[in-house]
Amino acid sequence: MNSTIETILQHRSIRKFKAEKLGDEQINTIVDAASRASTSSYMMAFSIIGVKDQRKKKILAEISNQPYVQENGHLLLFCADLYRNSIHADDKQYESMLPNLENTEHFLVASIDAALAAQNAAIAAESLGLGICYIGSIRNNIQLVNDTFDLPQHVIPLFGLAIGVPNHSPETKPRLPKEAFYFEDNYVDKSKLGTELEEFDQTIKQYYENRSSNKRIDSWTKQMVRVLSNEKRTDVGPFIQSKQYNRR
Amino acid sequence: MNSTIETILQHRSIRKFKAEKLGDEQINTIVDAASRASTSSYMMAFSIIGVKDQRKKKILAEISNQPYVQENGHLLLFCADLYRNSIHADDKQYESMLPNLENTEHFLVASIDAALAAQNAAIAAESLGLGICYIGSIRNNIQLVNDTFDLPQHVIPLFGLAIGVPNHSPETKPRLPKEAFYFEDNYVDKSKLGTELEEFDQTIKQYYENRSSNKRIDSWTKQMVRVLSNEKRTDVGPFIQSKQYNRR
Repeated sequence: MNSTIETILQHRSIRKFKAEKLGDEQINTIVDAASRASTSSYMMAFSIIGVKDQRKKKILAEISNQPYVQENGHLLLFCADLYRNSIHADDKQYESMLPNLENTEHFLVASIDAALAAQNAAIAAESLGLGICYIGSIRNNIQLVNDTFDLPQHVIPLFGLAIGVPNHSPETKPRLPKEAFYFEDNYVDKSKLGTELEEFDQTIKQYYENRSSNKRIDSWTKQMVRVLSNEKRTDVGPFIQSKQYNRR
Repeated sequence: MNSTIETILQHRSIRKFKAEKLGDEQINTIVDAASRASTSSYMMAFSIIGVKDQRKKKILAEISNQPYVQENGHLLLFCADLYRNSIHADDKQYESMLPNLENTEHFLVASIDAALAAQNAAIAAESLGLGICYIGSIRNNIQLVNDTFDLPQHVIPLFGLAIGVPNHSPETKPRLPKEAFYFEDNYVDKSKLGTELEEFDQTIKQYYENRSSNKRIDSWTKQMVRVLSNEKRTDVGPFIQSKQYNRR
């Protein structure tokens, strides 16, 4: 096993950081790494906002309801961005681009471009001995995030990435067994998938009972039903459409 | 610079592979790496189909119109997958989950989960000396991909990842200068962005004129207008809705 794969396999989210800011060199390396990810049709349809302004970090921490959004070594906000791809178009060209900018295909393109870039950034940071945590909960109030950074049309904030020197050392969290998410040539049949998930429920039950903090009694399948049963972020869809994405 | 960051910075898409299949150990390592990526609310909302069946690879190659979709060391198909998260729900629970499964928020969650996993797989493969190429063009006929693998509700094929031993050595392709995609605290103003993109157009003009194959005269801003002006994959939106995603 090489050190890159070791870094990848040792990932766990870090939610407590030392009060040590990242240096410019570290930030540059992480941002460079983000930019080298694959991109659909060379669109590079993402932007990153590095958040240093304490007032803005506080706003994001309140939206996310997580202290580590404010207290970290650096905070990156990843956006899907097709604005840059369109600003050199004249009015007539823009008119012919608009239906494409608005279709679901390009919402996918921009979201995936941003996610690939973010995962490059995450791995680069972890390879430097830093810890990371993705922050999807900025979407608790996606409109306010948008307004805080005054994002133009065709730019959507997707998630944050908190980075810093780890101040705790949590266990790695179990993942689904390979048989439950990797299939050859055919999607696995439902009964086999059911058996795999029942076994995984045993694994995760033990993990929750034995981990060093936040012990609880739970299973994965129950957790999923619970998580997905509560109405959540119903404003994300309309917000995204208001930014001229995902309209057709 | 460590070897992980070197691997990330040296990325270029490989589109010609030697006729050498990946071994099981390599595939296992790459799939393990994929599974360790961050995941929203522990949903692990993605699946991977390893495609070995030559008939199915041929179908995908025809859809993508790319020979390397058939000729590679291994082909992975990444899917957004919330099916697994819902099969243990009873009828009443499923009824309360359905509006959430259908909202845009969870379409984002599943797409991002799949993309983060894929980028882990890509970097793991590259760290092993293999080359990779993402294949978004499977979405040229997303319904046929779905039917070829008989994907259940709540499972969407997003993109392929071709992996193998490189049989060519293309240059790395320029990326946007940092100033055009990384901003601090505020989205950059339009005039500054315009200047950055004009400079990048010079870079990319030289790249296209000087690269070892497929030389042409082009700029990035012109290319973007061209790419986005042609109606493209208008069936992706309706297909995704037919799989009970992105409906509200």
